[in-house]
Amino acid sequence: MADAPLFDRLCLLGVGLIGSSIARAAKARGDIARTVVAHAKTPATLERVRELGIVDVVEPDAAKAVQGADCVIFCVPVGAYAEVGAVVAPHLKPGAIVTDVGSTKGSVVRDLSPLLPAGVHLVPAHPMAGTEHSGPDAGFAELFEGRYCIVTPLPDSDPAAVEKVREFWRRCGSMIETLDPATHDKVVAIVSHLPHLIAFTICSTADDLAEETKEAVLKFAASGFRDFTRIAASDPTMWRDVFLNNREALLEMLARFTEDAHALGRAVRWGQAEYIEDRIRRGRKIRRGLIERKQA
Amino acid sequence: MADAPLFDRLCLLGVGLIGSSIARAAKARGDIARTVVAHAKTPATLERVRELGIVDVVEPDAAKAVQGADCVIFCVPVGAYAEVGAVVAPHLKPGAIVTDVGSTKGSVVRDLSPLLPAGVHLVPAHPMAGTEHSGPDAGFAELFEGRYCIVTPLPDSDPAAVEKVREFWRRCGSMIETLDPATHDKVVAIVSHLPHLIAFTICSTADDLAEETKEAVLKFAASGFRDFTRIAASDPTMWRDVFLNNREALLEMLARFTEDAHALGRAVRWGQAEYIEDRIRRGRKIRRGLIERKQA
Repeated sequence: MADAPLFDRLCLLGVGLIGSSIARAAKARGDIARTVVAHAKTPATLERVRELGIVDVVEPDAAKAVQGADCVIFCVPVGAYAEVGAVVAPHLKPGAIVTDVGSTKGSVVRDLSPLLPAGVHLVPAHPMAGTEHSGPDAGFAELFEGRYCIVTPLPDSDPAAVEKVREFWRRCGSMIETLDPATHDKVVAIVSHLPHLIAFTICSTADDLAEETKEAVLKFAASGFRDFTRIAASDPTMWRDVFLNNREALLEMLARFTEDAHALGRAVRWGQAEYIEDRIRRGRKIRRGLIERKQA
Repeated sequence: MADAPLFDRLCLLGVGLIGSSIARAAKARGDIARTVVAHAKTPATLERVRELGIVDVVEPDAAKAVQGADCVIFCVPVGAYAEVGAVVAPHLKPGAIVTDVGSTKGSVVRDLSPLLPAGVHLVPAHPMAGTEHSGPDAGFAELFEGRYCIVTPLPDSDPAAVEKVREFWRRCGSMIETLDPATHDKVVAIVSHLPHLIAFTICSTADDLAEETKEAVLKFAASGFRDFTRIAASDPTMWRDVFLNNREALLEMLARFTEDAHALGRAVRWGQAEYIEDRIRRGRKIRRGLIERKQA
């Protein structure tokens, strides 16, 4: 016999790539929630979610959507948490778990903690999964399988609530890790946010080149540049919010990176072959580490 | 009936990823060369090429390898052209075509032109194909299929020799484009060399992080960072030589890129949401261009 559903009523605030993947995973398995309610901001998304039939209730009013839910998951861009949080906080059920899927965690604590009534449990989380596509059509039930989900409880988080969030992600197929929010934000700054900032930058640098060269850029996009454009195709609003909400860690990593890029550029200018080779070998070492961990 | 072979005796100087892929393509098709001779520097590579059985003659002496060849292809790192060129130049057959597969073209003209005897035709070329793997085992006959090959003839190149090099790459399955060497070097600086410099840099920046964070970097390498490590896994000697031999164009593109990265970092620091979104959208535009051209 399958396990009993983890939640009676699960509420998704936002139904993009991640939210719609959670909805599909819950539908595909019987043990996540008895009822899934989804709220989205735009009528077009609400209508599309209805058409897709991936949730039980589609609710245009965020305050109504959270009513009676024993778990509410913020799946909107992290820049919208404070606004959405202010709308829904007074309507949360006592004892409800509030969690999220955002790529920054310090900002969640900053934006949601002050709004939540006593007896509501905040347990931020970050599923390390995604594609360059966005919107309710982009999701799929298997998105989280075999991927890490980082849970970042606060020192005073209720252990039972933390364990429910962990179990939720286990049932979605994820491997669970626990970090404090500040360490999380530093790690994702280097593994995810800085690579995206760099990819957006090199693509827009290319776009600025003279018309003639730009045509050639597109024509001869070798594998190197093609990978950058894939990363750079991600959702603009989401990434704008991620950058603005992980400002300090991102700027620190950007500073380290540009120092290193300048040092490598200087070695190219002065013909320092050994220095260049050494830096290239360091990159390969990281790659080997990924292959050994089967993350490559 | 198949076309007659394009060359009687084709000589490959270097049998890494590209050289061994040419050897395999020539073996797979009957219309490229009657005999393929390969020279490599290290006994281990020579032995491995013998074992693989992908060429007709394995020749440890570069000067002997080129003797009687009507086409000689430099497949060594571009930094070795001057040294290898000095060894082979006196032994080239009158009327022979000398071409190459290097990622920089101005340097080929600089390094080989002064060495070649009158009556030998220099026609530099650059197949825009590759993987992150290197060595004679990494090659495969289909590597060049559907990929661009940029031919960069000199103003005084013999038209018949240029056409033979074009036809050679056509028979390898490539689409042929023609550029002058300087334009080629600028275009590849942005589409290929700078992306590699950036990927090597971010991977070595990550490697420099404190032990604790580095472990997490490997553990949580999200898709963004994983793509960078794939690019950064490329051959160190080859890329060192590419950087040193396309110095000016690469440093110009690096300067443009770091200006743009600093501008985006500044927008993050000052919370300029619109600027950030605009730069992200520019990246998506480039991506759409690739998809329309079926290069994505």
